Order: sequence, then C-alpha cells, then structure tokens
Amino acid sequence: MATEPTLYYAPGTCAQAVLIALYEADAAFTLKTLSFANNEQRSPEYLAINPKGRVPALVTSRGVLTEAPALLLYVAQTYPQAKLAPLDDPFALAHMQDFNNYLSSTAHVAHAHRPRASRWVDDESAQAAVRAKVPQNMRECFGLIENHYLSDKPWVMGDQFTVADGYLYTVAAWLQGDGVDIAEFPRVAAHAERMRARPSVRKLG
Amino acid sequence: MATEPTLYYAPGTCAQAVLIALYEADAAFTLKTLSFANNEQRSPEYLAINPKGRVPALVTSRGVLTEAPALLLYVAQTYPQAKLAPLDDPFALAHMQDFNNYLSSTAHVAHAHRPRASRWVDDESAQAAVRAKVPQNMRECFGLIENHYLSDKPWVMGDQFTVADGYLYTVAAWLQGDGVDIAEFPRVAAHAERMRARPSVRKLG
Repeated sequence: MATEPTLYYAPGTCAQAVLIALYEADAAFTLKTLSFANNEQRSPEYLAINPKGRVPALVTSRGVLTEAPALLLYVAQTYPQAKLAPLDDPFALAHMQDFNNYLSSTAHVAHAHRPRASRWVDDESAQAAVRAKVPQNMRECFGLIENHYLSDKPWVMGDQFTVADGYLYTVAAWLQGDGVDIAEFPRVAAHAERMRARPSVRKLG
Repeated sequence: MATEPTLYYAPGTCAQAVLIALYEADAAFTLKTLSFANNEQRSPEYLAINPKGRVPALVTSRGVLTEAPALLLYVAQTYPQAKLAPLDDPFALAHMQDFNNYLSSTAHVAHAHRPRASRWVDDESAQAAVRAKVPQNMRECFGLIENHYLSDKPWVMGDQFTVADGYLYTVAAWLQGDGVDIAEFPRVAAHAERMRARPSVRKLG
C-alpha cells in the first residue's frame, strides 16, 4: 500500500502551485513548510531529500520528485477523478505542458533575476543592473500569456480548470513585487480573481 | 485525417532534442530549418507561427505546440509504439519530466546567459560579468546531472531509452562552448558517446 506523499513547500514559491493541485485533488498528504528566511532549504537534512536546495519536492513511496511542471502532471495523473488535466488528449495535454513549461523556464526565470540575481552574476553593481530589467521581462512574459495563451474563457485551458491555473495564479502573484501592475493584463487579473474564490486557494490562508 | 506535423528547428538549439525524438519515433514530418544567423526566428512569418520567436515549434493539424519538454512528451505519446517514455507509469513519467524540466528551466537557462546575456541585462559590462559566471553554473548543473540523475545504467531513465536522452545529449553539447570539459562528467561523456552511435543522431549530420 502506498503511503501518503509529503510535499516540501514554502509560501509564495512555485511549490504553491503543487499545493493548490493537491488541495484541488482532495489528496491525502503531509505538508512540510520550510522557512526560507532561516535558509532551511539549504539544511543538510533537506539537501539529502532534494540536492537542488529548492522547493517543491514531493516524497512518495517510490522516491522523490521535483520541478513544478513534472509534479503538476503527476498530481493530475495520480488523482484522475479530480480531472485536473486533459489526460486523454495528447494534443491538449501538450498544450497544457507548453504553458506550464513557459511559466517555469521563462516567466519564473524572469522573476528570479530580482530576488536571485546572484545566481547568475557575482558583481554587485551587475546584480543591480540585472534586477533593473526584471519589470520589462515580466511585462513581456505576461503580455504573451495575456494575448497568446489566455482567451476570454475562464481558465488557461478554456472551460476546464487544470493544474495550469494554480501555477499561473502563483507566478502572477510575483508581478507586484517585481514592480508590474497585474491590471495591465486584464485576463490575468480576472483569472486571479476567479482563483481567489476557489476553496483550494482560500485554504492557503 | 491528420496531416504530417512540421517541426521548426535550428541546428544546435534545444529543438534538436525534438528532432532526435521524431527520428527515433520514425515519424512522418516536415522539417523546416531556420537560420538564426539571418534572424529568421524573428521574421513576421515565423512570429505568426510562434510569437516567442524561438524554436522548437511543432505545427500540427490541431495547432502549434512549443517548449521542448512539452513536445518531447507529445512525441512519446503520439508515437507510443516507439516506447520513448514510460507512459504507463505515472511515477516514472514524472521522473522523466522532472529531468527534462531541470534541463529546460535550469541547465538551458544557465547556458543561455552566455549567448543571450542581453535578455537579462542591458549594460554591456554587466553582460560580460553575467557571461563570466556561465562555466561555474554549467558545472554545477552537470554535477547534479552526473551525480543525482544519472546512474551507471546506459540511459537517463536506466535501461529504457527515452526522449530525455536526446535532450541531455543536446544540452551537454553546449558545455564545450561554455568553457567546460564534458570529461569532468564521466557519465555524461559516456552517454554522449552512446548517443553518437544511434542512427537518429547520425542522421543530424
């Protein structure tokens, strides 16, 4: 019998997308919240679980999984009754993965250059220059999300709510700290409103 | 009846991973090669297909798909007889997606700071500082790939060749230009050797 998975999480990080998906799936799981302020993601105990020193990590009876888009698909496949992805349609599923991967490899990366500029450059004045470009890059990403990925339907995939929606909600919440007003992107802003009404998001507290 | 898909590609880019997957699947498709030297990925014609101005893009009878990890899963699902992913095992599939997503959101991004530093910073001296850190970051990524993801089995997923292998081969080929010797990572180097012996890779020319 499989034991309950454990999600390693920190508030406001991309792990929130996985937490929303698990809540939406009504999954039984254990939540472990790391304090990034105390650098717990870099503790020897956590590095033994996830050597990347990042969240999310999901500890399952078969091993540890990381990377938000991989975990989101895993949650959708593991709890199929929740219908959190178009599992029976490879094209639609690929479209959802396309969106999720754009968030992880472009939008998340654009954002990370503000709080984590030191990942990519050592010099402090160069770090400041890197941070200065973040609003422009986030605006470009969300312009593409607004005009290319979203439509006038309620969810990323149209009428079906999927794991992509919790992920968009999570990354869009970073806009404000990055100096970009979500109101510049009316579909993204309306999507965030819809998300805030869902029990899964209310449960985040 | 579905028409053949068209892959938009440029040599040496991450689109090569998708081309290898299509060759491995023995798929019928049309290949369109863009000249990045001539900036064809930024032409109005191509931006109408993929507004991101990047490759890969796969034009299918149902629409356009982008993002390497999404396309790799799509190829594996669309040509299941080629057995290019553990499609019947959600945990193993998530592990493969975990790896592919690490390549796209961390290793590819680490590399891109050399040829594409201007994406993240405007100032030219800051761009030089960004480029200077690329070898260190690529070394860190490939250290994790070597020690955490790879084993002494021949392929990323162990004994089964999957779409992840063409992707690793593609990204590992960037190490040399980034100033890192692939020989520092014996499993990655042996994997590249194995890949070069495959007909799909020989076909790349």
